[in-house]
Amino acid sequence: MRGGPDRQGGRPSSGPAPGEPARVNDTASHLDALRAVLGERGLLAAPDDLSAYETGARYDRGRAAFVARPATTAEASAVVAHCVRHGIRLVPQGGNTGLVAGSTPDPGGAQGVLSLDRFTGPFEVDAANRSATVGAGLRLSTLNQGLEAHGLVLPIDLGADPTVGGMVATNTGGARFIRYGDMRRHVLGLEVVLPDAQGTVLDLMRPLRKNNTGLDLKQLFIGTGGAYGLVTRAVLELRRLPQQSATAILVPRDDEAVMTLLTAFEERVGDHLAAFEGMSGAAVELALKHHERLRNPFAPHPPPPFCILVEIERSWAARDQEPSIDVLMEQVLAEIWDLPGGPLADAMPGRGSDFWALRHVLSESLAAEGRVVAFDLGFARADVMPFRRAMTEVLAQRHPEARICDFGHVGDGGVHFNLVLPRDSALARDPAPLRELVFGEAAGRFGGSFSAEHGIGRANLAFYERLVGDRERGLAGSIQDLVAPGGLGSVDFRAAAPSDGSP
Amino acid sequence: MRGGPDRQGGRPSSGPAPGEPARVNDTASHLDALRAVLGERGLLAAPDDLSAYETGARYDRGRAAFVARPATTAEASAVVAHCVRHGIRLVPQGGNTGLVAGSTPDPGGAQGVLSLDRFTGPFEVDAANRSATVGAGLRLSTLNQGLEAHGLVLPIDLGADPTVGGMVATNTGGARFIRYGDMRRHVLGLEVVLPDAQGTVLDLMRPLRKNNTGLDLKQLFIGTGGAYGLVTRAVLELRRLPQQSATAILVPRDDEAVMTLLTAFEERVGDHLAAFEGMSGAAVELALKHHERLRNPFAPHPPPPFCILVEIERSWAARDQEPSIDVLMEQVLAEIWDLPGGPLADAMPGRGSDFWALRHVLSESLAAEGRVVAFDLGFARADVMPFRRAMTEVLAQRHPEARICDFGHVGDGGVHFNLVLPRDSALARDPAPLRELVFGEAAGRFGGSFSAEHGIGRANLAFYERLVGDRERGLAGSIQDLVAPGGLGSVDFRAAAPSDGSP
Repeated sequence: MRGGPDRQGGRPSSGPAPGEPARVNDTASHLDALRAVLGERGLLAAPDDLSAYETGARYDRGRAAFVARPATTAEASAVVAHCVRHGIRLVPQGGNTGLVAGSTPDPGGAQGVLSLDRFTGPFEVDAANRSATVGAGLRLSTLNQGLEAHGLVLPIDLGADPTVGGMVATNTGGARFIRYGDMRRHVLGLEVVLPDAQGTVLDLMRPLRKNNTGLDLKQLFIGTGGAYGLVTRAVLELRRLPQQSATAILVPRDDEAVMTLLTAFEERVGDHLAAFEGMSGAAVELALKHHERLRNPFAPHPPPPFCILVEIERSWAARDQEPSIDVLMEQVLAEIWDLPGGPLADAMPGRGSDFWALRHVLSESLAAEGRVVAFDLGFARADVMPFRRAMTEVLAQRHPEARICDFGHVGDGGVHFNLVLPRDSALARDPAPLRELVFGEAAGRFGGSFSAEHGIGRANLAFYERLVGDRERGLAGSIQDLVAPGGLGSVDFRAAAPSDGSP
Repeated sequence: MRGGPDRQGGRPSSGPAPGEPARVNDTASHLDALRAVLGERGLLAAPDDLSAYETGARYDRGRAAFVARPATTAEASAVVAHCVRHGIRLVPQGGNTGLVAGSTPDPGGAQGVLSLDRFTGPFEVDAANRSATVGAGLRLSTLNQGLEAHGLVLPIDLGADPTVGGMVATNTGGARFIRYGDMRRHVLGLEVVLPDAQGTVLDLMRPLRKNNTGLDLKQLFIGTGGAYGLVTRAVLELRRLPQQSATAILVPRDDEAVMTLLTAFEERVGDHLAAFEGMSGAAVELALKHHERLRNPFAPHPPPPFCILVEIERSWAARDQEPSIDVLMEQVLAEIWDLPGGPLADAMPGRGSDFWALRHVLSESLAAEGRVVAFDLGFARADVMPFRRAMTEVLAQRHPEARICDFGHVGDGGVHFNLVLPRDSALARDPAPLRELVFGEAAGRFGGSFSAEHGIGRANLAFYERLVGDRERGLAGSIQDLVAPGGLGSVDFRAAAPSDGSP
């Protein structure tokens, strides 16, 4: 796999292996030049200092020649320009919480990390405009803590705590997409350093909701992993911080009932519907097994084959004259109990924090059980359950050792289709046949996306090359060549374009 | 003004004037070739047949060499390819309701109109996915009539009845943006014919909400007036058709109170807030003057200097256990009456249809009164009232004959800043000094947008060249050259790029 993640883990404790690029010595003059721009705190080159920046959240570590930590746009521009002029590849890194090897260097040791961890300013809130101007290195949690006093929030709900720049670069979606949408929806403005010989700064920072004055260049930098430019600042649209929420777990009568329930909730309480999350019984069982303090909401029964976490939110505080949101949830559930065909087999209103605790440990629980082969798929909503059914049948026949422990966002068609394998199985050692099978069904037969919300990175590059059409890859590569000739980040869309150089 | 609209009106009833391109005779062989692709119904060339396609909604007419009316993607591709190969400029036209001369040919008579009026299919609704696959020529009204039985709607509210393709090409926003967002937000998929020698068809038609697999090429075609490609089909995200709404007119105590009221509504009923529209007293007065059947909501008093049309919507039908939306509006107004500082001077709940009838005739009422010089501006929300105040002062000093009759979307920062002039005034004959002044204040001092939601077209091309930065225009031109080398539509972003050919 071209440019694939380092599957070998670790790195030699002595110097570079024969044939590998040298790590520090050859680049001493570059380090001096970068240090002159960034100062001592702004440039790391000692192996102990690099380690934290070389390790991603869910894959083995790469190796960095250095870590550049600009704190201003001028510094970022100077670093990018220097590296472009000297052919040094930079990989931008925010919270480093991505899941596709998009923010860590490759194993070669010749790439530099451009960390935004000092680029946390400015942080200016315009409460009347419901917007904030922020540095790309600001963490989501820090942002939302600062917004709380204004009654505002950037409402993208994730298990991780990424930076704003990383969220832009991956166009994060998350669990409350059905109510709030993705990061693209919340970007009013961006400042970007282009990887060209000048480190050109593109200032697209106006805090405007309506601004149709030609090509919206911001869109090039959203969801493209930094390949088209380094996001340094952003103007974000914010939403009112929800003041009331109610949660329930639903057990659908059967697969067909899932869409009936989703539509029923949208019809009855659509303005408040914040999450409609599917959870397989297998995933819930593993969460309960590996987290003894979690309560089984189905006790004394085991979890059903599939259940749904539904949440409704109100952006305002309870007022005397209207039913509380808990009462509203009860009313809606009562209406849905009575629907023809009985789509609801069971329903449990309950504490949101309990249910979300269960939801948010699913991923790590799987990893505690065995080797996880994970897929981040997107579908038209009505295809989610048929895809699961089809995969259940075909996997039972061909790979019965693969346990389907999926969960995800039924409300937006997203499925974290995770397969848990015994660690000593042949498929655990080489999951390629499993990937062929799942992508063939998901992207082929069901017309789905092979990366709903995680992005490309080195981890998905081979699938990008196979599953995205020649014309689209050709245009993406040519546009990168125009906008970002120096290249940036873990993916080069020129290299991933068809070899004949079209479009 | 380069490529500016035809300000002379009409056209000679006989043949082309000396020096103008010939209209039909020289292009006979092209007409034959296009007719072979499109059939008799698909190609119009007789002057009487062309007339309707040559006239835009708010500006003088251009002249077309022919009108091509493809009904399939293959036909559209063949027409585009033929015209690119022979250097014939095509201007795509949907409902022709745009306001910036974006969908009509220039006065030269050498351009062809590519009308989508026969491209109304398919129209397939996926109710479970809340999406529809539609032809670009489908009218918004037809779409929404067809969606009503499903309880769904494309919720972009406009005075006009555009086609889906035109809405994509202008990224329409409208009066309910604060609740629903713009067209960009609702485009899940697009099919596009690129203006190259092959008429390349780009199929980006998957009905997915989450699909982060590299550069989102769809964004190139949204809001760019067709310059990057001809939109032929789209997959649209739909919303639940609202089942309850309540409307009121608010009179703010003063300018500062406007933002207080907006925030107060968002805090109290944000999930339902659908419109927060500002109307100047001058505009309301002209509406009442020119539409005698309209009721003055302020009778027996004259309209106040500024008022707000506020609307809340619920996506579900009334249920016994919760207050109706009219009661909710009353509760919210009662809460806001009691706010410290008394931001509310008056409030009138009332029939939405009455208030919207008033709102929707403002534009034409102005035209009945005098020469209208119109500006479609976008601001950070808190800048809307200070901009109005600044313009009121400076216009009173420098152009007292210009009456400010503005209205617009305070909730999203959009302002239709319209100036009404006596028809016989010097400024009516040459409004250039007025444009200088308003754009200088709006785009310069207040950092606003010179085209919030109407787009570029021939009408705004000169302002695009002056007010958008060299770097952005350079990139937009270079990307167009890559994606759409043949050129399409009323604007060529290459010609509008800086003359040194950068980026």
